Formats: sequence, structure tokens, C-alpha cells
Amino acid sequence: MKRIILITALALIAAGAYAQQVGPGGQPLRPRQAAPAPQEVFTGVVINPDNSVTFRYKNPKAVKVEVSGEFMQGSAELKEADGVWTYTTEPLAPELYFYSLTVDGSPIVDLYYSVVKDIPRWMNYFIITKEKGDRGDIYGVNDVPHGTVASRWYDSKTFGNRRRVNIYTPPGYEQSGKKKYPVFYLLHGNACDENSWLDLGRAAQILDNLIAQGKAEPMILVMTNGNPAQQAAPAYYGDTYTNGNTLPGKANFVDSFPEIISFIDANYRTIAKKEGRAIAGFSMGGGHTFTISKDYPNTFDYVGLYSAAGSNISDPAQKQKILDMKKNGVKLYYIGCGTEDFLHNSVLNYNKQLDEIGFEYFYRETPGGHTWGPWRIYLSEMAQMIFK
Amino acid sequence: MKRIILITALALIAAGAYAQQVGPGGQPLRPRQAAPAPQEVFTGVVINPDNSVTFRYKNPKAVKVEVSGEFMQGSAELKEADGVWTYTTEPLAPELYFYSLTVDGSPIVDLYYSVVKDIPRWMNYFIITKEKGDRGDIYGVNDVPHGTVASRWYDSKTFGNRRRVNIYTPPGYEQSGKKKYPVFYLLHGNACDENSWLDLGRAAQILDNLIAQGKAEPMILVMTNGNPAQQAAPAYYGDTYTNGNTLPGKANFVDSFPEIISFIDANYRTIAKKEGRAIAGFSMGGGHTFTISKDYPNTFDYVGLYSAAGSNISDPAQKQKILDMKKNGVKLYYIGCGTEDFLHNSVLNYNKQLDEIGFEYFYRETPGGHTWGPWRIYLSEMAQMIFK
Repeated sequence: MKRIILITALALIAAGAYAQQVGPGGQPLRPRQAAPAPQEVFTGVVINPDNSVTFRYKNPKAVKVEVSGEFMQGSAELKEADGVWTYTTEPLAPELYFYSLTVDGSPIVDLYYSVVKDIPRWMNYFIITKEKGDRGDIYGVNDVPHGTVASRWYDSKTFGNRRRVNIYTPPGYEQSGKKKYPVFYLLHGNACDENSWLDLGRAAQILDNLIAQGKAEPMILVMTNGNPAQQAAPAYYGDTYTNGNTLPGKANFVDSFPEIISFIDANYRTIAKKEGRAIAGFSMGGGHTFTISKDYPNTFDYVGLYSAAGSNISDPAQKQKILDMKKNGVKLYYIGCGTEDFLHNSVLNYNKQLDEIGFEYFYRETPGGHTWGPWRIYLSEMAQMIFK
Repeated sequence: MKRIILITALALIAAGAYAQQVGPGGQPLRPRQAAPAPQEVFTGVVINPDNSVTFRYKNPKAVKVEVSGEFMQGSAELKEADGVWTYTTEPLAPELYFYSLTVDGSPIVDLYYSVVKDIPRWMNYFIITKEKGDRGDIYGVNDVPHGTVASRWYDSKTFGNRRRVNIYTPPGYEQSGKKKYPVFYLLHGNACDENSWLDLGRAAQILDNLIAQGKAEPMILVMTNGNPAQQAAPAYYGDTYTNGNTLPGKANFVDSFPEIISFIDANYRTIAKKEGRAIAGFSMGGGHTFTISKDYPNTFDYVGLYSAAGSNISDPAQKQKILDMKKNGVKLYYIGCGTEDFLHNSVLNYNKQLDEIGFEYFYRETPGGHTWGPWRIYLSEMAQMIFK
């Protein structure tokens, strides 16, 4: 659905809501707090019929308003008329786009529009969809069966505390009796957390849509918190500024991974063996994946390193572990990296190391940097290549 | 934990993170995007030892910065030094507080701090806790066993579509074999959705804490979406401006309630009878609760009307339903309202109607208006009074 239709509908609904809305008993339901009148709603973006996007922001006192995002180089100035600032982009390709407004030099978030937190700040975003099956469509909430997303806590013996993990079970899981499902573990990068693959990675939407289209097998997703300094996402506590991924004296997240697998296998109907397990992560989580996949042999048949930090086997002991993995067999070793990623050379170097020992891998190179755009692409692609 | 300690710790961690952090393979992990250097982190609030709160906001170009919130009358101006604006409140009582910053007349949200959406906009918030068991403590994430929160979708025959519902199962639910649990249905007000009781009502934290303290029985919470125009919270789609709760030609949410109860009873180990069911809601959801509890007799033993819209039995047919409820028996009919609530007179009028027919109810009057402060209090109190 084009957002322009939605915005128009919202304006009409809002007009009706504040003018006429009545409660079950007949008396008017007033808004609970000051809400903008419909004509005051200049928020978010309007997606135009040609998939160009018009940003709107009302602020009569501002002197300069700018917009930036992955859809443009640098930033652009909005133009003001009657206190409302607007800017229209070129037509955009299907994708989920973050954007940022800057008012007189200070970054802001549009209060009335969709927000999501990428380290370390909240940002607005929108999705462009042109047709069924395109990238925006795969990242969107469509009229297809939806999996269940649960936030659970497990007792960590490694860290001696309770830790939070997010689990996606595919549509039909609850009604499928004793059927067992494969599990795809998704790990996050530095300063992200167990919510990141859901909030920014659109993992639930990607799987809902790919499963509905018959392109991915129904599978369980497990999204862990890879920061030993945290028991859960800071946002769950009410803190937002993300802290570091390690604290002195704490165990390594990688050391705790077997207890996570045990927890999942004990609590879900899983195919609890190598052929039923995949693991992938980006950045720090790619490094975790690199380590976990080689240090716990015969645990995963599918491994994904997305813009991985720390994948390097110049150390002979590490090289031997990869040689052992080759001997044991792994069905897919997926490596993805953006050409503008600051780790691009590091990733290419690792590929070269793998070439030298004849270790087979699948390499996906995309445009883009060390950002969610490429990682969503890699998840969308890898999810179609596993458990088949 | 006092936030001042946390902020200090974060600054130290951040300093270390950007200077020294290394990946599993030894190479430095650079931040993925421009992040503020530690000395630039002037965000959110510092909770001082006396529970006064210092707001901080960096913006060298602003002319006037104001703060407002439930902790003060009106608003206060922050003072600027070296581009950082600050204001310190009086000592505050334990509570969860929203706050809003206004920069040169435009409301903003602190990008680097905790945010939550109340209709229709995103806001920052913080929690004051003085001692174990106080209101702030009950609303916080503490070191106690945590329930599981799942977002599921059910097929609605009433609306002919898929609808999202959030379900809290108490700590130990998954390990308790065939044990059955009572269910507390929580309904929301106009322009809120199935996320509101979790995000703003702190329902999971309240139950986690009360159960851990032995003050509430372990119970399942079911948080529905009461807006027929929605299948799920707008934020789940990426839309944020909330739309109305009704659309022409759509069925009434109240009509769909039996299918929700059936879904829950079919999918969870519930005490599937009157004595195992409670229902409560605020504002429009209080009106829904008023209607559902009387129109589906012998379904709920515990009923909560929080700042309820539309509770009125001047119509003889409605009065008869309440008389029938009296005859059938109801263990708790909880009515809560703030003295500054715009529905206060309407609620008092309903109480008078109940008095006239000798219908027993529990009335909790608190300071406060038509806001989350009173509703969290009513949930916290009612949760301790039911299923015992």
C-alpha cells in the first residue's frame, strides 16, 4: 500500500476521531492528551506514485532543516513554506531506508513517525515496495501467516545470571504436533543486542514472507544477546545508550554458546543435530560465528559470516580447525560483505586464506558499507539456501 | 542502581570501546557509524542521590530549551553552559515518569535515551526507585525470574483477518508440566494497541515483581488489540501515527472477544472457567471491559474498570445485565479513577448507579488524570487481589 493513501486515510480518520468519536455508552471519547489537529499532521514521509519520497517536517522557527539517509549522498536542505519544511527525493528502489533530520545543526527524530534504534541513536525509517517479492516487500508485514516472536529468559551458568533471548517460531509451529524444526541462530554486532535482528534486520518479516512464498523452509530463529556485560537489551531496562560488548572479568559470549543450544533444544521441537542447525552473524557477531562454528565441530551444517570481524586463520591452530571443518563437512559456508565495508579487505583476505586450503565457501559481494542494508540481503539469501 | 553510576560507567566503557576494542581475531572493531565521543554524551537524565533529576541536552545553537513532564506543573527552562543545557528538579517520588524537551518551540525526543510511544508521539522516560517494593521498583526490571512475552497472531473469524495479540506467561510456565494458570485479559484505550500495556503499562515487569514477592499468583496476561481498524500495532508495520479505533463497516471489537478467549484456552494451559479469568481495561478498554463482562455472563470472576469510558446503566436493559451479574456472583468488581481524570464525574455517576442497585464494587481513587500513572497503580493493586 502506498503511504500517501495511508496518510490521507489517517488524516480523515483523525478528523473523524476528534470530532465525532464516541464510547460504547454514547458519550464522546476525548483524546487523552493534546494531539495535533489533522491539518497539523506534517510528519514522516509521503511515498509518491513514482516511489520518490517527500519528507515533511513542521517547525516555523527553524532556520535550516536537512535530511540525510542511505538513499542519497550527503544531505539535502528542506525548503520551508508556511512553517512546513519539505524535500522530495529521486525515485527510490525497493528497500528499507533509515533517515535523519537535522534542525539548525542538531539531529532530531520525527516524533510522530516510525522509529527504530541503531547504535547509538533512534532514527526514523520507511519502506519502499514496488512489487510482490521485491526487497521492500520481503521486509514488510504482508497478508501472510505470521510466526510467533517470544522474548524468553534462560539461566546462564556461564555468566551466573539470567539472560534474554528472542525466538521466532514459524507459522504453524504451535499446531504441528510433534514435528521438529531446524534452528537458525542469528548473532549481532558490537553495540547491538537481541532485539537488533528483529527491529533492524526484519528477521521475522523476512522469514514470514519467504516461507509464505515457498522460498524458505519453516525454521526457528534464535536471536541471542552477545554482550557479556548485558543480561538483556538496554532498551528493555529503559536505558538506550548502548554499552560495550565486554566487561573485564566476564566470560566470553562464545564460551556460553553451548548452554544456549541446550536451552533451545530442551524447550523447542528442534532437529537437534548438525543438519538442523545454521548460524550467522554480522560484524562482531560474524566473528562470534567464525569462532563458534570452528570451535564446536559438527554442530552446524550452515554458517554465515556477514561483514565478519576477526575471521582470520593465519594462526596454524585456527587454520587446523577450519581444515577439520572441511573434513567433517559443512553444507554451506556463506560469506557476505559490502564493497564499501571497512572490513572488505579483511574479508577478502580471509577468502584468500580459505582458497589456499581449498575450503569451499559461497561469497556474496554487494554494494554498501558496514550497515543493515547488506545484512538483510544476506539473511534473505541465506535463508533460502539452508535446510533443503 | 542509580543512573549516575550507569552513565559514568557508560562513559568509561565508551572511552574504552572506541579506543581499544578488539575483535575475536585481534583487529580493532571500529564503531559502525559516527558515534559521539564520550565527552559528547550529554543525554537523558542523571538521577541524583536525593532522587532529584538533572536533565541534560547538548545543543549549542538553541535559544530556549524547556522540559515538561508529570513530575512538575507546566514546564521549566534549562540553563545553558558550553552548549549543554541542564535543569535539576526537586527530589522525586518513586515512579515512572515521561518527559518532553522543547527546543525553540518544537518538541523533540532525546535521541540517545530511552523512548516509548504514547499517543500520538514518542517520548523519553525514566524510573525513580528509592527502595525495594516501591512503585519505581515494581515497574523496573529486577533480578527476579522473568516471564515470557510472546507476540502471536490468531485468525479472526469476526474480522476475517489475522490479528496480533501479546501474551505474558509467568516464570516457570514452560517447566510446570500440566499445571493450569488463570488468565488476566488487559484491554487498552483509544489510539493505543496490543503493545501499550507492555510498553507503557509495564505489565510484564509488574507481574514479574509481584509474583517474585509472593504478592500475586502466577497468571497469564493477554494483551489484545481493541481497534477493529488494525490487525496489529501501527508501529509493527512501521507506521506510528495512531489511527482510530473504529472504521465504518467493521465489526465491534467486543463482538470478537469470545474468539480470543477460545484461542487462548486452546493454546495455553488455562483455568478455562469464570474463576480463572479476569479482565480489565482503561478508557475505551474500560468501556470494552464494562460491556464484555456483562454481555458474556459467567465468564469473568474479576473485572477492572480503569478510568472507564461508557460505564453507564441508565438503560434498563443494561441495568438488568448488571443485576444478573450480581445474581451470578462476581468476586471482584474493581473501579479506579484519578481525581483529575476528565471521566471522573462519569465514573462517580456509575458508582452511584451501582450503589442504587446494591451491586458491590471496590473503588480506588487516586490523584492524577487520564494517564498511565493511575492505570499502572490499578493493575499493580488488582493483580494482588485476584485468583486467591
